[in-house]
Amino acid sequence: MPRLLIGNRPSNDLVGTWGKAAMGWWAQRLLWFVRDGDVLVLPEAPDESFLSYVTELTSTDRASLTVVIPAAGNRPGQWLLDPELTHLTRQALAGRPVDEVFALCPNEAVVELARSLGAESAVPGHGFLDQGGALIADSKAVFRSLAAGSGLPLPDGGVCANPEGAYRLITRLLADNRPVILKKEFLAAGNGNEVLTLTKDLRVNGAGRTVLLGDAHDAVRVYLNERWDWLTEGRRHRVIVEEYHPGSRGVFAEFWVGDEEIELGGQGEMVAEPVADHSYLPAPDLTAEQERALMVGGRKLCEVLRAMGYRGVLSADAIIVEGAGTPEVFFTEYNGLVTGSTHVYHLGKRLAGADYARDRLLAEYVSWHVPSFAEALRHLESEGIAYDPATRTGVVLLNSWRDNPGVVPYCLIAENVEAAERLKERLKQDPRP
Amino acid sequence: MPRLLIGNRPSNDLVGTWGKAAMGWWAQRLLWFVRDGDVLVLPEAPDESFLSYVTELTSTDRASLTVVIPAAGNRPGQWLLDPELTHLTRQALAGRPVDEVFALCPNEAVVELARSLGAESAVPGHGFLDQGGALIADSKAVFRSLAAGSGLPLPDGGVCANPEGAYRLITRLLADNRPVILKKEFLAAGNGNEVLTLTKDLRVNGAGRTVLLGDAHDAVRVYLNERWDWLTEGRRHRVIVEEYHPGSRGVFAEFWVGDEEIELGGQGEMVAEPVADHSYLPAPDLTAEQERALMVGGRKLCEVLRAMGYRGVLSADAIIVEGAGTPEVFFTEYNGLVTGSTHVYHLGKRLAGADYARDRLLAEYVSWHVPSFAEALRHLESEGIAYDPATRTGVVLLNSWRDNPGVVPYCLIAENVEAAERLKERLKQDPRP
Repeated sequence: MPRLLIGNRPSNDLVGTWGKAAMGWWAQRLLWFVRDGDVLVLPEAPDESFLSYVTELTSTDRASLTVVIPAAGNRPGQWLLDPELTHLTRQALAGRPVDEVFALCPNEAVVELARSLGAESAVPGHGFLDQGGALIADSKAVFRSLAAGSGLPLPDGGVCANPEGAYRLITRLLADNRPVILKKEFLAAGNGNEVLTLTKDLRVNGAGRTVLLGDAHDAVRVYLNERWDWLTEGRRHRVIVEEYHPGSRGVFAEFWVGDEEIELGGQGEMVAEPVADHSYLPAPDLTAEQERALMVGGRKLCEVLRAMGYRGVLSADAIIVEGAGTPEVFFTEYNGLVTGSTHVYHLGKRLAGADYARDRLLAEYVSWHVPSFAEALRHLESEGIAYDPATRTGVVLLNSWRDNPGVVPYCLIAENVEAAERLKERLKQDPRP
Repeated sequence: MPRLLIGNRPSNDLVGTWGKAAMGWWAQRLLWFVRDGDVLVLPEAPDESFLSYVTELTSTDRASLTVVIPAAGNRPGQWLLDPELTHLTRQALAGRPVDEVFALCPNEAVVELARSLGAESAVPGHGFLDQGGALIADSKAVFRSLAAGSGLPLPDGGVCANPEGAYRLITRLLADNRPVILKKEFLAAGNGNEVLTLTKDLRVNGAGRTVLLGDAHDAVRVYLNERWDWLTEGRRHRVIVEEYHPGSRGVFAEFWVGDEEIELGGQGEMVAEPVADHSYLPAPDLTAEQERALMVGGRKLCEVLRAMGYRGVLSADAIIVEGAGTPEVFFTEYNGLVTGSTHVYHLGKRLAGADYARDRLLAEYVSWHVPSFAEALRHLESEGIAYDPATRTGVVLLNSWRDNPGVVPYCLIAENVEAAERLKERLKQDPRP
C-alpha cells in the first residue's frame, strides 16, 4: 500500500504569509522521507535534478514514485483543499488504500484531504488534528503551560494575552538587570523573536532584532504600544515573555510520538547567528547530566502530548545556561511538526546508519553560496568530498538550489566537529560582499 | 491555617467585559464554600444579610471569617493585582501560612496574588495556571481537540481560526439539512452561541440568538462577514462550529481533579430557555448507559487535563440526542473553573448530606422575582418552605437580591422533580409584564 507524503507549510492561521513565497523550494525537504511506491503531494513540481540526487543516494526507485502538484496559477484559498488537487491525488492512488499519511505540517487541512480520499485514519493523531490540534502542538504559549504543569524547568517568564501582563513581566525582569526575549506564539527559527535590553553591549543569538530601551518602565510601554500588533499577528496570538540568557546553547531532542512507543529521533545543537544558521547532531560535548535532563524533559512533553491525542514528530527545544554553579537546562518550546532537523537525522540514519550518532556528526548548514545545484555537485565530485557510503563521510546537499539568495543547504557527515570544519573549508564559496 | 478564597471572574482575556458590571453580586456564590477561619477576597463588600444567611445555614462562625475588598473607586487594571489589595490581604492573613487557595476562576492573576503572599504552592495547579493555563482549561476550542484526541463522541463540526474554514463546515452541515450552532471560544451559559438554520420553525435552546439564512452558501458568507468580529472577540479567539441537535438534553458531570484522585462533585441537567434558566442535580431519568457514558467521558477529560498540569474543578458538558436508534451522548465543552453548578451541589452536600443524590433532587433556578432579599426570606418563612434540616427539603436562596432585574436565584431541595415543582408553585411571584 502506498504512503501519502504531503509537503505543506504551517497554515496561515499560525504564521500568516511567512515563508509562503519560498514554499515550493522549502517543501522539497519532504523528498528525504520517500520510500518506494510513495505518492507525494507538493505545492510545486520538485527540481528533477534534486529528486534524482535524493533517490539515488537513498536507493529509492524514482519510477515508483508519483508526484502530485496543484494546477498552475495562483488560486485563492488553502491549496491542499483545492478539489482539483484532491481529484489528482485520488487518480494517483488509483484505488489503492493509503497505508500512512506523513505531512510536514500535520493539521486539519491534511486530515480533510485524507478524509476526502477515505484515508482519514491513516493520519497519525487525526482526531486531535481535525479539531484544531495544530494550534496546540505548535504553540509556544501552550508549551509553557504544559511544561510548567509538568514541573519542567523554564526560563523565568510567562504567557501574555494582553500588553498589561507583558508590561508587568518585562519590567520585573529588566528592573532586575535581566534582558528579556519576546517570542511570537507560532513563528520558527528565531524569526518571531525580539530581545529587549537596557545595555548596549549585549551579544544576541536566537532573535531577529535587539531593541535597546532607555529604562525599564516608560520605554517598555512605548515599545509595547509600537510592537503589540506585530508580536500578536494583529492580536490573534499570545506573546511569550522570558528572561534572555546571553551565551546559552540551544539544544533539542526530537521524538516520534506513537500509539505505544515514544522513540527518540535525534538530538542536537542549534547555532543561531543571530537566527538559525547551522546545527550539530548530536550536540557536541553535552555532559551526561545535560543529556539526561534534555531526554527526561523531552519525553515528559511527549507523554503529555500523547495523552492529549497528538501523534507524530515532537521536538523539545531547550537552552543550556552556564551559571555560577552547575549549568542548567531550561526548556524553551516544542514543535509538533517536521522541523528543520527531522530530515537531517532521517537522512543521517539512511546514509550513515541508524546508530550514526555513535561515531558520526551531522553538521547542517543553511547556506552554501554557489551558482547552481549542478555546480555544487560538480564541485563536490571534483574535490572528492561528496558523501561516500564506504567512509560514511562527506557532503550531502539538503535541497535544490534556491535562486534568492543563490544558495544550497548542506549537511557535512564527519567524525567530529573538527573533521566537519575541515570538510567545510573545502566547499567553494562565492565571494560575498 | 486559613484558606484564601478568591471571588474573581474570568479574565478580560477570555470574556472581555462580559458580566463585569454584576461581578460584585455574582462573586458572592463564593460564600457557599466558606469554612471557619477563611480569608475571603471579594471585588465588593458582600451583602451582610446574605452572608449571615449562608453562615447560619452552614453553621459557619461569621466572626472567624475575614473579608478583604479593594479600596473604593473604579481603578484601571486587574483588581486582584492592585498592590493595596495585596497589602490588605497580607494584613488579613497576619503572618499565618495559607493552607489552600480556592478561586472561582483559577488563573495567572490568582497565582500572582498568591505568590506575592508567599502562597503560590497553595494554588492547585499553580505551574500550569501561572503560564496561561486558564486559556486552555476554559477553551471550547482546546476542549474539542482534546476530546477528539481521546476518542470521545462529539457533535459533527470543528474549530475555526478563519472564516473560510467556518464557511466550509457550516455549508457542509446546512446543505445536509442540519442546523448549525456557532460558539464563542470562552463565553458561558449559551451567551456566546448562535444557531444558524434554513428553516423558520426550529425550536432553539442553548443559544442567545437564532439566525435564519436564505441559503447554505452565499448567505453564510454574508453572515460570516457580518459576525466574524463578534464571534472571535475582534479576531482574538477561535470559533466552534457544530451540528445543532434540536430537542437534545444538556447534561454535565463535574469533578475535582486532584494530584491523586479524580472525584465526582456532582452531575445534572441544564435547561436553557433559550439561555441558562434552571438545572437539576442529579439529572432526572438518565439511563444507566447515558450516565455511564457521561462519567467515562468526563473522567477521561479529567485525566487528560491532569496530565497537562491542571488541578481543580472540571465540568464536562454533554448533550443527549434522541435519534432513530439508541440516544447518544455527545460531549460539547468543558469548564476548568467554578461553574454555575459547583456551589449548588456543594451546598446540597453541606445541607442534605454528601449522598444527597440518593434521595434528593436539587432544582436550581436563576430568577425569583421578589422585591428584596428580606421579603424573599419572609415569604419562605411564612409559607413554611424555607430549607428544613429535619425534612432535608425546602428552598435555599443562592445569592443576595440583584437589583436589576430584581431577582434572587434559588435552589429547591426536594424528593424529585414533581415535589420540586410543587415547592416552586408556593413561591410568590411578582406580576411580570
